[in-house]
Amino acid sequence: MTAAIDFYFDFSSPYGYFASTRIDELAQKYGRIVAWHPILLGVVFKTTGCSPLPHVPLKGDYAWRDFERTARFHDIEYKRPTHFPLPTTQAARAMLWLQNHHGDDIATAFAKAVYHALFVDDINIAEPAELVKLAEPLGIDAHAMDAGASSFQIKDQLKAAIDVAMAKGVFGSPFVIIDGEPFWGFDRFDQIEAHLKSKRPTELRAVGSTDSHTLGNTDSSKEKKPA
Amino acid sequence: MTAAIDFYFDFSSPYGYFASTRIDELAQKYGRIVAWHPILLGVVFKTTGCSPLPHVPLKGDYAWRDFERTARFHDIEYKRPTHFPLPTTQAARAMLWLQNHHGDDIATAFAKAVYHALFVDDINIAEPAELVKLAEPLGIDAHAMDAGASSFQIKDQLKAAIDVAMAKGVFGSPFVIIDGEPFWGFDRFDQIEAHLKSKRPTELRAVGSTDSHTLGNTDSSKEKKPA
Repeated sequence: MTAAIDFYFDFSSPYGYFASTRIDELAQKYGRIVAWHPILLGVVFKTTGCSPLPHVPLKGDYAWRDFERTARFHDIEYKRPTHFPLPTTQAARAMLWLQNHHGDDIATAFAKAVYHALFVDDINIAEPAELVKLAEPLGIDAHAMDAGASSFQIKDQLKAAIDVAMAKGVFGSPFVIIDGEPFWGFDRFDQIEAHLKSKRPTELRAVGSTDSHTLGNTDSSKEKKPA
Repeated sequence: MTAAIDFYFDFSSPYGYFASTRIDELAQKYGRIVAWHPILLGVVFKTTGCSPLPHVPLKGDYAWRDFERTARFHDIEYKRPTHFPLPTTQAARAMLWLQNHHGDDIATAFAKAVYHALFVDDINIAEPAELVKLAEPLGIDAHAMDAGASSFQIKDQLKAAIDVAMAKGVFGSPFVIIDGEPFWGFDRFDQIEAHLKSKRPTELRAVGSTDSHTLGNTDSSKEKKPA
């Protein structure tokens, strides 16, 4: 009944990592599912003319400090990575391959493992061999994943997916779109929750008014109430 | 006993405006005062290479939407200004002149009036005549202010103040520095409050350990407890 939450992220984005530790839990609380979309900020930045935060004069030092403080404030495990910034193309492509061949649950578990590897265990996730090591415990044929991630089909698919994201207005990481409403940044999670909260009664009302013969089903809704 | 909170802002910054409606109240809650520092983002952006948010491709539309949603979320009066972006040099200089000649309270009241004029009443605050109109109800000799704001002394003072701010790491608006800890953005007010909360017991302890004969005064502290 309720639409999926679209969650866009780059694997090298610390705020994207923070968001990845909370988005599923938040969505579940309001009976939603999350569609995970890896993107490449390098491609997006060609359009916006922006640079990665740690590269901007003055902002760089602040950014590193804010990553740490924000992790502490939200009680999220975080260790400053030594490999940074780093290319995330292979990780993004591997995730798409997994979505195609193993479905969303396995692909999302892999994404969480990749983020944890970079931002907690300080692993160089630009290395295909490291991605293979992360995939193996998930019961994936990691060498098939490695080969698939380098195929032309997956390269084209990622390129097209980023074009679609930008056409929808995505320009950063994390970026969340819910019911057409865009939210940029982990620091918009409070507004995301307010949106999810406000949308639930409205939707029930909308269903009731446009399709009145289904009203009798309202009580048997399986959706959980917001806590 | 406790240091002032340094609050940096540009008069054309919507998030700066939002912060200006909350910063004094938040500081008071923790027994602090606020030192208000008008800056010019145009000068800062020459160093960082950034552009005003509404001018960045893709970010622009989002920014306008986020200004409105954030105002609503925090229950702050806001109306999208038609004069935007606009030069804020005269407003910043007028505020410095007021700080020099009428003290911080009048200068801060003027700053709040300027922000309200731009972001609620849709007044073109780049016009010196509009600044004069805003100053008059505050019992200021507004024509002296207008003349003073154009003096070489005030021009130099603002330039130097922005240099000092940048030397301290300021690169955006709002930007808050408390006890050497920098916070960028209205969306860091939750972390600012956590910092203020955490600093209070530490400071009392510090006083006790370095200056033990004052310990007996602890109970008679006039500082308010955090709510």
